[in-house]
Amino acid sequence: MKIRLVFHVVGLLQVFVGLTMILPIFCAYYYGEPEITSLLWSMGITVLGGALVWSLTRQEEDIRVREGFAIVTLGWVATAAFGALPFLISGSIASLTDAYFETLSGFTTTGASILTDIESMPRSILLWRSQTQWFGGMGIIVLSIAILPFLGVGGMQLFKAEVPGPTPDRLAPRISQTAGLLWGVYLLLTVSEIFLLRFGGMDLFDATNHGFTTMATGGFSTHNLSVGHYNSAYIQYVVIFFMFMAGVNFSLHYRCLTGLRPGVYGKDKEWVFYIFILSGATALIFLYNGTSGAGFAEKNFRESLFQVVAITTTTGYSTANFDAWAPLSRVMLLALMFVGGCAGSTGGGMKVIRLLLILKHGKTEIKKLLHPKAVFLVKVSKIRVRPEIMLNVLGFFTLYIALFVFCSFLMAALGLDMISATSSVAATLGNIGPGLAQVGPTLNYSQVPLLGKWVLCMCMLLGRLEIFTVIILFMPEVWKKF
Amino acid sequence: MKIRLVFHVVGLLQVFVGLTMILPIFCAYYYGEPEITSLLWSMGITVLGGALVWSLTRQEEDIRVREGFAIVTLGWVATAAFGALPFLISGSIASLTDAYFETLSGFTTTGASILTDIESMPRSILLWRSQTQWFGGMGIIVLSIAILPFLGVGGMQLFKAEVPGPTPDRLAPRISQTAGLLWGVYLLLTVSEIFLLRFGGMDLFDATNHGFTTMATGGFSTHNLSVGHYNSAYIQYVVIFFMFMAGVNFSLHYRCLTGLRPGVYGKDKEWVFYIFILSGATALIFLYNGTSGAGFAEKNFRESLFQVVAITTTTGYSTANFDAWAPLSRVMLLALMFVGGCAGSTGGGMKVIRLLLILKHGKTEIKKLLHPKAVFLVKVSKIRVRPEIMLNVLGFFTLYIALFVFCSFLMAALGLDMISATSSVAATLGNIGPGLAQVGPTLNYSQVPLLGKWVLCMCMLLGRLEIFTVIILFMPEVWKKF
Repeated sequence: MKIRLVFHVVGLLQVFVGLTMILPIFCAYYYGEPEITSLLWSMGITVLGGALVWSLTRQEEDIRVREGFAIVTLGWVATAAFGALPFLISGSIASLTDAYFETLSGFTTTGASILTDIESMPRSILLWRSQTQWFGGMGIIVLSIAILPFLGVGGMQLFKAEVPGPTPDRLAPRISQTAGLLWGVYLLLTVSEIFLLRFGGMDLFDATNHGFTTMATGGFSTHNLSVGHYNSAYIQYVVIFFMFMAGVNFSLHYRCLTGLRPGVYGKDKEWVFYIFILSGATALIFLYNGTSGAGFAEKNFRESLFQVVAITTTTGYSTANFDAWAPLSRVMLLALMFVGGCAGSTGGGMKVIRLLLILKHGKTEIKKLLHPKAVFLVKVSKIRVRPEIMLNVLGFFTLYIALFVFCSFLMAALGLDMISATSSVAATLGNIGPGLAQVGPTLNYSQVPLLGKWVLCMCMLLGRLEIFTVIILFMPEVWKKF
Repeated sequence: MKIRLVFHVVGLLQVFVGLTMILPIFCAYYYGEPEITSLLWSMGITVLGGALVWSLTRQEEDIRVREGFAIVTLGWVATAAFGALPFLISGSIASLTDAYFETLSGFTTTGASILTDIESMPRSILLWRSQTQWFGGMGIIVLSIAILPFLGVGGMQLFKAEVPGPTPDRLAPRISQTAGLLWGVYLLLTVSEIFLLRFGGMDLFDATNHGFTTMATGGFSTHNLSVGHYNSAYIQYVVIFFMFMAGVNFSLHYRCLTGLRPGVYGKDKEWVFYIFILSGATALIFLYNGTSGAGFAEKNFRESLFQVVAITTTTGYSTANFDAWAPLSRVMLLALMFVGGCAGSTGGGMKVIRLLLILKHGKTEIKKLLHPKAVFLVKVSKIRVRPEIMLNVLGFFTLYIALFVFCSFLMAALGLDMISATSSVAATLGNIGPGLAQVGPTLNYSQVPLLGKWVLCMCMLLGRLEIFTVIILFMPEVWKKF
């Protein structure tokens, strides 16, 4: 491991992180909030700290696969540390653990919060909080589409080696160019949402914050009641639409926008399965809540759809206290926490493509029993999936489940009841945000014991970086001197 | 599908099932119980019914793979139907659903019960109830070691194609001979346990019943408090030992007994991992319950060990109300429900060998990231596991999880709370017996809604027959006229 090289890149990253603090500084200036001093200090420390590390570790060597993993993981860990400064210095969040938890929850686009009264926070600090998610989402898009596939990790890798030669399925190969194009799409969608929310009567501050955290599938809100604060069907449907868009593979958006071919979505089997899951779950919960007392009015439909989309895309907003819903709806939402968005979206979870492959694999195994000599290969969108890829996807699935079980043990050992323990892990590992019971939508993570918060921080990081990226750093071999 | 052939074999099986009713008939005669008439009627109907079907469908054709699956599945379904007659005719269990649930729970060695007052039941009926488990266990040993591997299903198949040439790892190849040898071991262990329980002061009736249901990892008891009824450390340790033995691959017992080589166990990596799981879980629960108020006395150790062994081997006895234990212990027990015994034991669940392979696979996938060009193969007990086998094991795991989630939905839709819904499915799919909350050790399955009982019946059958065996019958292709 060329550790100097890792620090070099991560240091540079912090300079950029620090520079993004200019937006909340403007906000504090505009509203005349005293937090402007704390924000200036945070910016100074982050930019100078990053630059110092960067200049002290200057190195010209190539980045190998192992350094790639270390840069990505340490990048997120360090960004959350520097990103916690505005909370700590301004005193908005006094405890170090809480500040780190909130910031990592931001940059991993999880949206799990320890704040008990969001509305009492200064606006500039809230903007910074939302902004961590927006930049986190930006990082994730590039990571999942442009970086991880080349490290051999993540849903998108499926399509790396499969598509030979020049094809419209390959995005511009150079990372910087790809990043620029995707960010354009991301920015366009965010601006559209802000505009549409403003149009629905939301003020600019709230619209900007919600635009930031929707497109990142983050879920931080500026209100204690989350999107439920807005008693407007229009606003809620707008948020539903953009959560949905944020859960779609961004390379599809890009191809659709550049070629103006909406047909590109329908041809993508992952997208079709994503629609299938969303509509199936919504229909079931709508029917079930309808017969359990909510009735069959538009409000029930909207709340069901909103919550299914919010959980599946791993945004984690709420418009209703879904923890009080009937058993089937709660079990369904807990299961949806494992699904997540499409590969190459800002959504977390296992990703729709993996689920699709796993289900197809199960069917193949049954067919094999009848024809033991035949060779069956799973196909997705006309692409044949090689056994190595399938083994990787299944390996990811089992690691995900193993981590879920192991971390649930830890949370239960720290005294959380069974539903809180399992749902807090599911909600952080999947980067959703709120879970059920003690960590449900009307409560939050402030009551989780100190050690538990660190366990959940680990879950957020593991889930966000597709597990492998983080876990590989625990292998001694990675740290050998070449 | 040669459906006549399937009925032919299943009919013959019922003749044997009917003949085994002779034992409870003797019991009723001995205790002068009026249930003797109902038992005689049941025996008559079963034997004659079976013989009739058998003679009407006489056929000389070969059994192919698809008929194999149908015979096994229909065999269990029909046996539970005829086996329910003693309960129904004697009126001990009045409802058809309840009688079928109890009998299938017996023959699948699950041990989930709908009886609210076991001790008020006639002794002959209780003996029949225990006996269903014992014969179910017998069926499972032959099925898992001698039949399923040749149909391409189950943990033991791993070792089918892997070991070339003559080797002590292959049991006598002919099914009938293998069956005879394994049943000898099974009988020997059962008789030893009955003897040791008698020696500890248990009466012959209870000793026989518990001997039957321990070796089958069934878990039906003759007392409302299960093994907790006996306030004797000796008896509880004897039961622990035999539950443990019942969860071990019976071909290891056979090889140990015939060659008198106890070393055969230590060389088996599955056995070693089985010990590791049992001792690890016991230590954790002992420590956790100890610090949560139970203290560090022998009683706490015994209760922890008993429950870990009872759940992991899927026996499902209890000596304490583990549903009232602290969160970690409950989550731990719920997780252990998925483990199950070793392949080739009478235990249910996913099987230790599969878990071991899945974990090794996870590790391999991480190594692959560092060396993308290298080929890694998982090894167990010096045997290399081919990718096809690994894909099958992972396919089984994902199907198991998918079924668990799907059936939990169904149970929640029927109104069970989240913990009851998930644990009832985990406990029946894994053939354990008692779950948590509404279906915990002090309560039982009598309050589950009618439809829910049938869902759980399906779970017991799927879990017991390694999922594939049952699910394949839902494929239209299997039913084609050749």
